[in-house]
Amino acid sequence: MKTRIKNIYKNIEKKPDVIIIKNSIEPFIDENFFYAADLKTGIFEGAAAILYPNGNVDLLVSELEAETAKKAKVNIIVYKDEKDFYKILKNKISSSKNIGINFKGITFKNFLKIEKHLPKANFLDVSGSFDKTRIIKDENEIKLLKKACNIADKVVEKLPEILHEGIYEYELAAEINYLLQKNGAEKPAFETISSFGKNTAEPHYSHGEIKLKNGDIVLCDFGACFKKYNSDITRSFIFGKANEKQKKMFETVLSAQKIGFEKVVSGKYAKEVHKAVEATINKTKFKGRFIHSTGHSLGLAVHDGSARLSSNSELKLKENMVFTIEPGIYIPGFGGIRIEDDILIKKECIEILTKSPKELIEIR
Amino acid sequence: MKTRIKNIYKNIEKKPDVIIIKNSIEPFIDENFFYAADLKTGIFEGAAAILYPNGNVDLLVSELEAETAKKAKVNIIVYKDEKDFYKILKNKISSSKNIGINFKGITFKNFLKIEKHLPKANFLDVSGSFDKTRIIKDENEIKLLKKACNIADKVVEKLPEILHEGIYEYELAAEINYLLQKNGAEKPAFETISSFGKNTAEPHYSHGEIKLKNGDIVLCDFGACFKKYNSDITRSFIFGKANEKQKKMFETVLSAQKIGFEKVVSGKYAKEVHKAVEATINKTKFKGRFIHSTGHSLGLAVHDGSARLSSNSELKLKENMVFTIEPGIYIPGFGGIRIEDDILIKKECIEILTKSPKELIEIR
Repeated sequence: MKTRIKNIYKNIEKKPDVIIIKNSIEPFIDENFFYAADLKTGIFEGAAAILYPNGNVDLLVSELEAETAKKAKVNIIVYKDEKDFYKILKNKISSSKNIGINFKGITFKNFLKIEKHLPKANFLDVSGSFDKTRIIKDENEIKLLKKACNIADKVVEKLPEILHEGIYEYELAAEINYLLQKNGAEKPAFETISSFGKNTAEPHYSHGEIKLKNGDIVLCDFGACFKKYNSDITRSFIFGKANEKQKKMFETVLSAQKIGFEKVVSGKYAKEVHKAVEATINKTKFKGRFIHSTGHSLGLAVHDGSARLSSNSELKLKENMVFTIEPGIYIPGFGGIRIEDDILIKKECIEILTKSPKELIEIR
Repeated sequence: MKTRIKNIYKNIEKKPDVIIIKNSIEPFIDENFFYAADLKTGIFEGAAAILYPNGNVDLLVSELEAETAKKAKVNIIVYKDEKDFYKILKNKISSSKNIGINFKGITFKNFLKIEKHLPKANFLDVSGSFDKTRIIKDENEIKLLKKACNIADKVVEKLPEILHEGIYEYELAAEINYLLQKNGAEKPAFETISSFGKNTAEPHYSHGEIKLKNGDIVLCDFGACFKKYNSDITRSFIFGKANEKQKKMFETVLSAQKIGFEKVVSGKYAKEVHKAVEATINKTKFKGRFIHSTGHSLGLAVHDGSARLSSNSELKLKENMVFTIEPGIYIPGFGGIRIEDDILIKKECIEILTKSPKELIEIR
């Protein structure tokens, strides 16, 4: 994993002497810790990683996770308590003046503690470099992402037979999560969304005690987390026979997604993709009903490195980036349709990593 | 929920004029946002809550979650983008000089952004007050926690019939998570631990591609997240006939847990509980094999408010606190036993919220 660390340094303009990644308690865990250590398991509350310009890594971990940490091919140091932690940290980096910190991945409290223990240090925000490095996936990451996508696809295949009149939203979520794990995911990539009827109009609704009934839109948004790498897909169905409005919504979203696929080209800008997708929806009667960005980078985080296909993004698309393409139409009180697939940008084309739908499925 | 906000102010020595809670992107979401708004669903990336001394709350949310936010009985303001967000924030709190921030729940990056937009403000760390307020549960929270415990208990009952020779650790995790959700949990409280054999010696191991075999210790650590409130229990079994060492480990842990239950008394100190539990283990041949704290506060977070039953805690136990009691013995290369139950501190006794085990179960 020395290449990863070296790339992180390469992507920083004003180079620090050393970089510190510091975890707080859950949920405030910086996934860059796992990126740098190439660890596939563990939680590592309170732990830290010290990254050196030569690609070496020291992990400072508590006794609780010393066994787990041994799986990393890096130097492991076990600390007893917080006092011991800072003693070791100070020893390790006493000669460093410029210290890189991921300002987006550390709590303000932890930053102040580090600052207090290293009063002469000059702190540099290296969050941009983590984002920039991680957005380009290496071979190993692409393999894991493909597997995560493959697991999600397998779950989609089973959805029509699971859906039946009266099933609760939360039961469907349970079935999806079960299938994700039975197919090899460690866990769902995020809280699975399974919404029925008008609840589908809330893009971030999760699931509740609502029963499926005839004519409902069914929206499932979920992903597999496989060895810490995430897929993220959304499927929308009609339970029963679709009405004209539902059909029109689906067709519009599907054609918007197709435009999205076409516009993703290495060398072009992320915002152009979003603009084209948005325009496709806005030229229909559903104008203004697409209320989020077209997609986001995928990786160790579901929203990886905060890179988005959105109107205010300055990102240039490049080979080996992985994105979701997820247009949607949301009509409060009526319902929403979203279709989301994951893609890998290649030199001259894209590879769609999930099995994108071809038409509206009516489940009867 | 005005009482909650007023209590947060009551628990601060140097009162701020206003408190801002600011979420980043997942996983950097401050659960105090949900505490203050009393919201049971949603993710609310980028959102903020402004808490006023009179108990009022303004929520600043993106259009994406405007529908979901409406479920909160507080004032909702929808922002368009980041620029708009800070414009609204500045308008709302222009007259405030002393601004309270949860230093433990905000990223350093977001703190710097707020500071930049409010250059004249004086920022106070109110993280201690959130911890102090949230550690005492109100009636509604206790109800939700009891339900979360109840769900976990139901899953435990099913474990013996699920376990069979050759089941993979990850399959068991899938079954546990499925049962959690089928019994009403929104999701597992955290990544379910299901480990076999020598893997049980890693307290934070999750699960892997390991098959269950005769004679293995089986350790399951999981909980239910019910309306954002979490339970957390651990059960250890022997698959087959237990050997003498396994039996002795279990008996030692069980008696240590019993001591823990006895030592938890309103008015006494958290560290006394840990010392007594640790001493129970240390006077046996398993001395030094209990390598973590005796328990932690439970609530909206699994490790709620960082309050622990540990040797370095200064916490005084009080009525309506909810804790886990989870002694364990870990022998690398051999295995580990942990027993964990959740308790509620009452005026003159404790209520054990989960069905604590009475004896070692051998599954055959």
